[in-house]
Amino acid sequence: MIKRLLIANRGEIAVRIIRTCREMGIETTAVYSTADQDSLHVRMADRAVCIGPPPSSQSYLNVNNLIMAAVNTGCEAIHPGVGFLSENAAFARTVRDRGLIFIGPDPETIALLGDKVRAKNTAEKFGLPVTPGSGPMKDPKEALALIHEKLGFPVIIKAAAGGGGKGMRIVRAPEELAENLSIAAQEAEANFADGTVFIERYLENPRHVELQILADGNGTVAVLGERDCTVQKNHQKLIEESPSPAVTPAMRERMAEGAVPLFRELKYQGAGTIEFLVEGENFYFMEVNARVQVEHPVSEFVTGIDIIRQQILSCTEGRMEIKPDRVRTEGWAMECRINALSPGKITRLEIPGGPGVRFDSFLYTGCVVPPHYDSMIAKLIVHGANREQALARMERALEELFIEGIKNNIARQRWIINNTTFRSGKFGTSYYSEIEKEAESAL
Amino acid sequence: MIKRLLIANRGEIAVRIIRTCREMGIETTAVYSTADQDSLHVRMADRAVCIGPPPSSQSYLNVNNLIMAAVNTGCEAIHPGVGFLSENAAFARTVRDRGLIFIGPDPETIALLGDKVRAKNTAEKFGLPVTPGSGPMKDPKEALALIHEKLGFPVIIKAAAGGGGKGMRIVRAPEELAENLSIAAQEAEANFADGTVFIERYLENPRHVELQILADGNGTVAVLGERDCTVQKNHQKLIEESPSPAVTPAMRERMAEGAVPLFRELKYQGAGTIEFLVEGENFYFMEVNARVQVEHPVSEFVTGIDIIRQQILSCTEGRMEIKPDRVRTEGWAMECRINALSPGKITRLEIPGGPGVRFDSFLYTGCVVPPHYDSMIAKLIVHGANREQALARMERALEELFIEGIKNNIARQRWIINNTTFRSGKFGTSYYSEIEKEAESAL
Repeated sequence: MIKRLLIANRGEIAVRIIRTCREMGIETTAVYSTADQDSLHVRMADRAVCIGPPPSSQSYLNVNNLIMAAVNTGCEAIHPGVGFLSENAAFARTVRDRGLIFIGPDPETIALLGDKVRAKNTAEKFGLPVTPGSGPMKDPKEALALIHEKLGFPVIIKAAAGGGGKGMRIVRAPEELAENLSIAAQEAEANFADGTVFIERYLENPRHVELQILADGNGTVAVLGERDCTVQKNHQKLIEESPSPAVTPAMRERMAEGAVPLFRELKYQGAGTIEFLVEGENFYFMEVNARVQVEHPVSEFVTGIDIIRQQILSCTEGRMEIKPDRVRTEGWAMECRINALSPGKITRLEIPGGPGVRFDSFLYTGCVVPPHYDSMIAKLIVHGANREQALARMERALEELFIEGIKNNIARQRWIINNTTFRSGKFGTSYYSEIEKEAESAL
Repeated sequence: MIKRLLIANRGEIAVRIIRTCREMGIETTAVYSTADQDSLHVRMADRAVCIGPPPSSQSYLNVNNLIMAAVNTGCEAIHPGVGFLSENAAFARTVRDRGLIFIGPDPETIALLGDKVRAKNTAEKFGLPVTPGSGPMKDPKEALALIHEKLGFPVIIKAAAGGGGKGMRIVRAPEELAENLSIAAQEAEANFADGTVFIERYLENPRHVELQILADGNGTVAVLGERDCTVQKNHQKLIEESPSPAVTPAMRERMAEGAVPLFRELKYQGAGTIEFLVEGENFYFMEVNARVQVEHPVSEFVTGIDIIRQQILSCTEGRMEIKPDRVRTEGWAMECRINALSPGKITRLEIPGGPGVRFDSFLYTGCVVPPHYDSMIAKLIVHGANREQALARMERALEELFIEGIKNNIARQRWIINNTTFRSGKFGTSYYSEIEKEAESAL
């Protein structure tokens, strides 16, 4: 077992990783920007190293400073958390080249999965359905021919190296195609230093469903059920649940049948997610997130498995404590992301308790939420016997939660939890944009 | 389904019951003494009624005021919580006579189980082993004959109507018998208005193990595994866990085989606990607690069942949502009771989070812990894959817990969690008194 690990992250996920490390007897080094010096992860870790000022390019994305902090505090491994450098193959390679363990799959796997065209081709090889589309595409004429022949409008142009909506354009008519191809390529070049784009059939209002995978790199691949992350605002997930109200046992099985051999073939190590777009009974491979995800507690609640623990064991020792055929899901779990709508000092914090409630956060009374980083400040997760009971529990827990001193989205989340369409379980990714105005005027 | 329920209690258990009621759509009426007017259960309930000043005899034990509060706020049922009037047959009868539902078994069952001699005889009828002993016993000569013939020294004298250590005397030699019989009878008379005492063989250092029962009054009786409550200070439980490190599957089965028909025969309704003393592979019926218990969250964690919810359904509708043969326990749960060692105002409160952690309390920053009531202010409960992981999680969670402004036992609980004997799982009810001095000098 490793003795010491550096967490190349901040906020809630850094706190989350420290908790598991403490339980495993692994000492932690926290890193922090000057804006985060009083942050909870700094207080909780065994050691803490300042790695520079905001913005993140000078601190949380500063590879040299991160490596130096790890080496200087005697760490044997680096956990990248989510966001920041968590899917950066070059960082993973640097970590490895410096003789440290990267808590994630190997750099080659990250690179492969980070290239959306290569990832899609790989998924197809394992029999996973993909949305019909092209390889790298430059020429508008060629694109139009493919659309007429195979895809039909609307289509979506995506950056091969992309993510977060950048380099994405939806095209609904032939005359919009040439210009959007060119703009998307420019955006892709500007954001990812790679102007490669491709085209896919665009699904108008699918659901977003993903499987949680844990793999030990030695052929053991476990599926911890699926998560439904359909409630999104501008591609940012807001509410996640497991199981998905839209996934049948047969669909679940078919998803796993494609996913498990894919992760086995990749000799995948640690936690990963395979994302699908779902329309009715059909699903289409979208991408693999080669890291742990924000919404992992939802799967922890239905399976009882500590995903960070198994991820660390897998990446440091090539083993896990779970058996794929003994993973069972029980009941229904749901997560509301609690976001700051303004920076500021927390003047009052009241945290819900009781059965089936979990609150993951870096907040404490008196702490400051700086303006520089992701707006998510907490995750409220509940578990109940079924969806109805999970909803009732989430409603109750949101009523108990008070975060004062900054603007937040608690009232908005309560509105959604009580919304008839959300309660019905029948909606697609455009759900949030459809109800946003109604919610706003009600609050 | 009932629409409104009064909670005849305060503190943590009142908050606990409000949480489940809210999830079930049941409105709550809180009651409070003048010392509790700013207490969390008052804030959380839909309605709150002041029922008098401390001490409890003038408020939480004031039957007339409680009934009046229920009637005046339109309640259909009364939940007695734990302690106070929760095992008072006369109160249950008054509630029923006023046309309200008592959340608990019927008054006759409470009366039967409250009489230790009758309860023991009933348990014996169902094949449960009992510690060898007498019926009601007055005459020292008769007692001595019985001891020589059947019991052997040491013996314990107990009050038939007793509880909480009152009216109990341990006798180790013939010459101490007469005086102790007489003192015990006087104590019993003074405390319970019933001087009846009886004699039992005294087990020197047994474990305390109990089964959590849920029954619907119509023949369905479910066992939610056992709890081990061996860590006690002066008969007050400090740490509880499930499963018990000392109970084998065969013992568990034999306990249930006696308990289930007993609860079925009693037409028992709601939550109850059957307590045993355990010595090696032998166990002896001790008593039934005809109410929910403080440590019920431990069983909720291993089974995923909301015990308060099933208790309310059972007592109001004669049904439950669980099937006895489908109750499964998973992993290992543990609870540390957090006690106030002084009254005062809470100036800082930090609550642990992350996977497998639950915190049930009535504390909030700025609240006042009054001097009049039970010292328990919070329960920290954890769940892990096995005992080792539960211990690591409890240790981590205790490290994250800060309660400032009053003296508390957090450091003491951390000491026990790290103590080698506790970790070994091998100890009896005298464990705490054996380590108390060592713990004190270490803190």
